[in-house]
Amino acid sequence: MPASSDISHPDVPNPDVIVVGGGIVGLSIAWQLQQNSISAVVLDKALGSGASHAAAGMLAPVNEAYWGESEVLRLHLAASAAWPEFAAALGADTVDYHRNGMLLAAFDADDKTQLAHLHELHQQEGLTVETLRSQQCREMEPLLSPSVQGGIFSPLDHHVNPRLVVQELLKAVTVRATHVEQVTGNCVTTSDGQTLSCGQVVVAAGAWSGRLLDLPVRPVKGQILRLRGEPGLLRQPIRGLIRGASIYAIPRSDGEIVVGATQEEMGFDTRITAGGVYELLRDLLTLLPGLSEADLTETWAGLRPGSPDNAPIIGWGPSGICFASGHFRNGVLTAPITASFVTALLQKQEPCIDIGPFSPSRFVSATSSSWRDLQAVG
Amino acid sequence: MPASSDISHPDVPNPDVIVVGGGIVGLSIAWQLQQNSISAVVLDKALGSGASHAAAGMLAPVNEAYWGESEVLRLHLAASAAWPEFAAALGADTVDYHRNGMLLAAFDADDKTQLAHLHELHQQEGLTVETLRSQQCREMEPLLSPSVQGGIFSPLDHHVNPRLVVQELLKAVTVRATHVEQVTGNCVTTSDGQTLSCGQVVVAAGAWSGRLLDLPVRPVKGQILRLRGEPGLLRQPIRGLIRGASIYAIPRSDGEIVVGATQEEMGFDTRITAGGVYELLRDLLTLLPGLSEADLTETWAGLRPGSPDNAPIIGWGPSGICFASGHFRNGVLTAPITASFVTALLQKQEPCIDIGPFSPSRFVSATSSSWRDLQAVG
Repeated sequence: MPASSDISHPDVPNPDVIVVGGGIVGLSIAWQLQQNSISAVVLDKALGSGASHAAAGMLAPVNEAYWGESEVLRLHLAASAAWPEFAAALGADTVDYHRNGMLLAAFDADDKTQLAHLHELHQQEGLTVETLRSQQCREMEPLLSPSVQGGIFSPLDHHVNPRLVVQELLKAVTVRATHVEQVTGNCVTTSDGQTLSCGQVVVAAGAWSGRLLDLPVRPVKGQILRLRGEPGLLRQPIRGLIRGASIYAIPRSDGEIVVGATQEEMGFDTRITAGGVYELLRDLLTLLPGLSEADLTETWAGLRPGSPDNAPIIGWGPSGICFASGHFRNGVLTAPITASFVTALLQKQEPCIDIGPFSPSRFVSATSSSWRDLQAVG
Repeated sequence: MPASSDISHPDVPNPDVIVVGGGIVGLSIAWQLQQNSISAVVLDKALGSGASHAAAGMLAPVNEAYWGESEVLRLHLAASAAWPEFAAALGADTVDYHRNGMLLAAFDADDKTQLAHLHELHQQEGLTVETLRSQQCREMEPLLSPSVQGGIFSPLDHHVNPRLVVQELLKAVTVRATHVEQVTGNCVTTSDGQTLSCGQVVVAAGAWSGRLLDLPVRPVKGQILRLRGEPGLLRQPIRGLIRGASIYAIPRSDGEIVVGATQEEMGFDTRITAGGVYELLRDLLTLLPGLSEADLTETWAGLRPGSPDNAPIIGWGPSGICFASGHFRNGVLTAPITASFVTALLQKQEPCIDIGPFSPSRFVSATSSSWRDLQAVG
């Protein structure tokens, strides 16, 4: 079995940091470390092919705000504020980054009640939103069904094409396409039997983080569709509340429209199902019947990294490993700020906001015995 | 420009017959000619990729019977009777040929009225069918919705996997992957500029037949889905009448379930649309809700060759060209018998049934001027 005590692979320089996981979070971390003169190598068997490839790219703190999750909302607002600089560095047009807000539309009377409930939350949290009558919604987005009862426009909610972000990051960082089987302290073991060491290991392995380490991260399946029409067919990013369900449709500059997403507790299952696609199309065409003739160009499924409290897990864990996982529905939104947090931690600086609430330590008591055994397991 | 007066292509022997069109009809013709010691070459740019690749493979004269189309019904019954021998020659298991009947189920009260109307037709035409109560339908196919009002079982309706049929025929016949641009008498001109001559040209170019010659054949788009579950998940080929629409689901031995099909007058358009897939899934899951968790493995669209009277166009046309086109929804069913008709015509024998009603000549008066100019056009 080939083995080495350092990362002396011919095509990989000996790095300060190994980042385990080549999704948008891991790649953003490596990119930001590199900006700060810290060398990093990203290891992933299938770079950029996980949740980042599925994701619609909503950068939507307001539409992702839920009752009882104020700390996550603060994080998302700070994350949103970090995006313009990040997008500019990659090229805002190159990654199809747009700051044109999002329209949340309620389909029937019950959905309008739900909309009012969300508006209370927006007011309580002091979020900038604009309530719209039915006709105003349809002026903003003519494809909306005449049945729409009203809406809320949130100028703070933006969007980006995560596939293009990953593509740009992959050009800028050092990667190695290999499967990581084990992480122990400052060593990782790959499936080809190599043990690689470095100054610091960062685990950003999304839904798979819980397989590498005893973290309470679980896969939450999302099926998602990609449609295509004339550019501008759908003017406006839309989220819809439709007969108790929720759906979104995000237009890209090239005419692609991303429609998502189911939320399923199915383990590591990425099957596209008849029922999943049906429900997405049913809700989409109820809200936006004019998309019926758009091409259905892709069906896909990804696995969100869910945590027990829906908040990410960022910070120091046992064995001195740094975690950046559990970003659930908002890995694209929080990738740049997570990268800045990790960079600060590795430089022994204070992150720009208090990330205490997201520390891995909040789960230690529940899994302490496993954590104690981490060295042995590794 | 390379040109030759005969088919002296290095990899193609000089044939008695050139068949233009490599779908299931053209390939069956070449295969049957070859069985009768008549050499044939099939020309098609994309062999087996047209309607034959989309088709579900229903061999269903009873479920394809319509009022006012008795002659087509007689053809379909004779075609069905020719299938066992054809399937046996290719290997019935190899092509997944099954003679287990089809269940036509009515979803609501209006659909049951439609079912009764079809049953009158079955009785008038003397077709063997069995009417079933709701519970009997569900005993036959437990996945059916409890809402199903009743059904008709037709033991005469069989099915096959057309992709496997094409695959077997391609092993047995001589083909050349080239696009045919023009047909004149006993010559064809390919897109690489060659003019090939032979003893007889047969045009079996499906929906594209009307582009080659002035035949009233038009493309009728069908979007179709392929699902996958455990083999035996769906026991029984089902056709459903659902709130005025019609859908079918055909199980394959390997667990694939073919679900079709839209019927759209869209010209040469094979886009998969959000609305097309939605309607198929909606009707399917209304009829068979238990298929919700089945994988959706493929969305596809093909172009049926439609004729003005929904009957095929088989026989001698002007310039001595032999036609075998316009098979609309039943090219798979009628391929073997069409091959026997063409073989008989070329051997100057009488076909096994009167094919006068399907002669190209029935459209001559409408297009006589174009037909007169055919030589000039070629």
